[in-house]
Amino acid sequence: MNFMNLVVDPEIVKTIIELYDRKNIAAGNTRIIRKIADKIEEQSGIKFIRMEIGEPGIIPSHIGLQSVVEALEKNSSFYPPPDGIPTLKNEISRFVKLFLDKEIPADYCIPTVGSINGCYASLMVAGRRLDNKDTVLFIDPGFAAQKHLVQMLGIKQDCFDVYDYRGQKLYEKLTEKLEKGNIAVILYSNPNNPAWICFTEEELEIIGSLATKYNAVVIEDLAYFAMDFRKDYSHPGLPPYQPTVARYTDNYILLISSSKSFSYAGQRIGMMVVSDKLFRSCFPSLKRYYASDIFGTALVYGTLLLTTGGVAQSVQAGFAEILRNVNDGYFNFVEEVRQYGKKAEIMKRIFIENGFSIVYDRDGSDPIGDGFYFTVSFPGFQGDELSERLLYYGISSIPLSSTGSYRTEGIRACVSLVHFDQMPELDRRLKLFANRMNEI
Amino acid sequence: MNFMNLVVDPEIVKTIIELYDRKNIAAGNTRIIRKIADKIEEQSGIKFIRMEIGEPGIIPSHIGLQSVVEALEKNSSFYPPPDGIPTLKNEISRFVKLFLDKEIPADYCIPTVGSINGCYASLMVAGRRLDNKDTVLFIDPGFAAQKHLVQMLGIKQDCFDVYDYRGQKLYEKLTEKLEKGNIAVILYSNPNNPAWICFTEEELEIIGSLATKYNAVVIEDLAYFAMDFRKDYSHPGLPPYQPTVARYTDNYILLISSSKSFSYAGQRIGMMVVSDKLFRSCFPSLKRYYASDIFGTALVYGTLLLTTGGVAQSVQAGFAEILRNVNDGYFNFVEEVRQYGKKAEIMKRIFIENGFSIVYDRDGSDPIGDGFYFTVSFPGFQGDELSERLLYYGISSIPLSSTGSYRTEGIRACVSLVHFDQMPELDRRLKLFANRMNEI
Repeated sequence: MNFMNLVVDPEIVKTIIELYDRKNIAAGNTRIIRKIADKIEEQSGIKFIRMEIGEPGIIPSHIGLQSVVEALEKNSSFYPPPDGIPTLKNEISRFVKLFLDKEIPADYCIPTVGSINGCYASLMVAGRRLDNKDTVLFIDPGFAAQKHLVQMLGIKQDCFDVYDYRGQKLYEKLTEKLEKGNIAVILYSNPNNPAWICFTEEELEIIGSLATKYNAVVIEDLAYFAMDFRKDYSHPGLPPYQPTVARYTDNYILLISSSKSFSYAGQRIGMMVVSDKLFRSCFPSLKRYYASDIFGTALVYGTLLLTTGGVAQSVQAGFAEILRNVNDGYFNFVEEVRQYGKKAEIMKRIFIENGFSIVYDRDGSDPIGDGFYFTVSFPGFQGDELSERLLYYGISSIPLSSTGSYRTEGIRACVSLVHFDQMPELDRRLKLFANRMNEI
Repeated sequence: MNFMNLVVDPEIVKTIIELYDRKNIAAGNTRIIRKIADKIEEQSGIKFIRMEIGEPGIIPSHIGLQSVVEALEKNSSFYPPPDGIPTLKNEISRFVKLFLDKEIPADYCIPTVGSINGCYASLMVAGRRLDNKDTVLFIDPGFAAQKHLVQMLGIKQDCFDVYDYRGQKLYEKLTEKLEKGNIAVILYSNPNNPAWICFTEEELEIIGSLATKYNAVVIEDLAYFAMDFRKDYSHPGLPPYQPTVARYTDNYILLISSSKSFSYAGQRIGMMVVSDKLFRSCFPSLKRYYASDIFGTALVYGTLLLTTGGVAQSVQAGFAEILRNVNDGYFNFVEEVRQYGKKAEIMKRIFIENGFSIVYDRDGSDPIGDGFYFTVSFPGFQGDELSERLLYYGISSIPLSSTGSYRTEGIRACVSLVHFDQMPELDRRLKLFANRMNEI
């Protein structure tokens, strides 16, 4: 490869890609792709435009600092309650009422060590609750880590790409999957990672009613809570509210991460909100693995307690204080993250101007919103080739194939770590790329 | 039952025991027993002598507070590395060198969300690494939560009570168990919870050499690190060192909890130290569950990352600073917890003076040491009956049967939450108990 018209010395890129194995690019292994980009930056001295990982690029609010210090001084020697400290449980319950318009008692509102810990525990217990239901159905595209989690748990998985099944077509596709009788869990993220599709109330009603009909538990991953910026979900107790399947079934577990919406990824705390009916249900099959056959007891005492012992006292205290300020209307958490939408708008325009196309371009009948992620493709490329080739232009991303998407020509771009002042450079690099591709 | 000569109104005790189900006492469910004692205290106004749970009763050092605040301000939006921040990994590696006299590079020293998270991940991956080895062997008595963990993971378990197999007899018993070929993991705590037995170097050599011979991974739970107060393990870089199986095999994972030795239970951070040879070993069977068949990769990226995403940034930073002070010799962590041994000495004397016997009374040829736990029995009682009966005297404990002990007549007493100024009251209550029992 010729250095001319490239951004980074191709020998450096080539050597490092080979060192870390290009299979990891195809697999969308974000941490390895991050390492590849780090190493190329280090050896070439060229700063990357980082689009590979969904990590917040915002300094979080320092609300709660005093609570953290107090908790550390007073409670660091005491085991936390495995289902959360009462102040935090109450604030989660208030948050769910004020931003989802659902009444869920604090007993069923449980902090976990990151949302991934809630996902892990939910999958394990929901996936074991009935002998004849042994499969997790992913409504794709989705978060690769959750697919690895299901494999790690030894549970079967099935999936489909939702892009071709919006609205009433979703009813037919889901019915086809569910009537086999083997689906224990339906899992999706809303807004969707990576496509940024947001389900409509009609679609959530379809998912909820079919989950009830076929006795599947919906795990709804709200990792990007209130981040569909086309609507303003930021005012506590006022409509519109974040859409949720919880309005349409009693078979649900909601996972609300603090990582993105609260820019709190480093503190490893998520909220798991369980339907009270499901929490109190009895499933004799659980006795094979747990001392109790009550769903909520197996979830909290059989799983969370035995895998982490709960969330650190100081972390819980700090997050409780942040949530209290959100609930009381003193801190508008959505305002803080709205800049992601502005970045997405600019970046998508730059990509399109340089000959790229948006892959998931529609959200039902509307154009796709501007949020944390978007998806693009370039004529003549498969996603894994495109992700790899863009490394030579100092741009890192992951291919869509790793997300369960059928649109294998695309890549996912995360906007969070791209700075506003990098936009002209993004344009320059994409121009170099596009010009060279057109020459070939 | 007559109120006379009892400490608490028997109607209150009886009602609450029935409400929470006496089966939970027999099962040694510490959190339920704690709740029973809480409720009796609340309704009777009588303060309990709390011996049921192994929770530190010491306010931890406030070293590290500044580091916690700095980490929260600087790093709370960044995902922690799943295998730990470099400063903490380095301090763990130094700690292992200075207090265990073992050279383990920082790469293999991994913080986990509590030691239970390291135990969970170790059991899962070690238990799956070879198709023909599907069983965890507990050297009992042990920690009931670890037995529940193995059940939750769907792995088989075997066990024996070590009391009758000390010294050379351990060789024969272990060989008998291991030569069947099905043992994937050997798990024990040293010092032992609940018996406070401490393995000799001879015994650790037996365990290590047989683990190598029969290809079993030893998970050594050092939850009470340096707390065999008969020896002074508190001086960094100077002998004597905490005994460990790591001197006798390459097939080991050490779990070093911060909960007891550092009184840091509320912050949920433990240290998992993995043999470098094991960490780098390849086991094709792991491919069924993980993207990688390398033991350490499946452990860190296939398990820790997918179940917690690592330990919170601020928690890691705080603990790194505590360890740095310990390693540099500025903070003697053992001195802080030595009071447990003094309490055990007094409490054992009081129990014996009132007609109780120490169950696990010998450690090899020596009398058992004074530490965090001890075990007692009373003529004519089974352990579960004794635990229940003592509730009427305002004393909470767990029966030994729940720990895998064959000495079902005993109960476990944890000294940590008993205050020095409660000793006269302990004596008074045990006298009432003993007198009444002698009357019957």
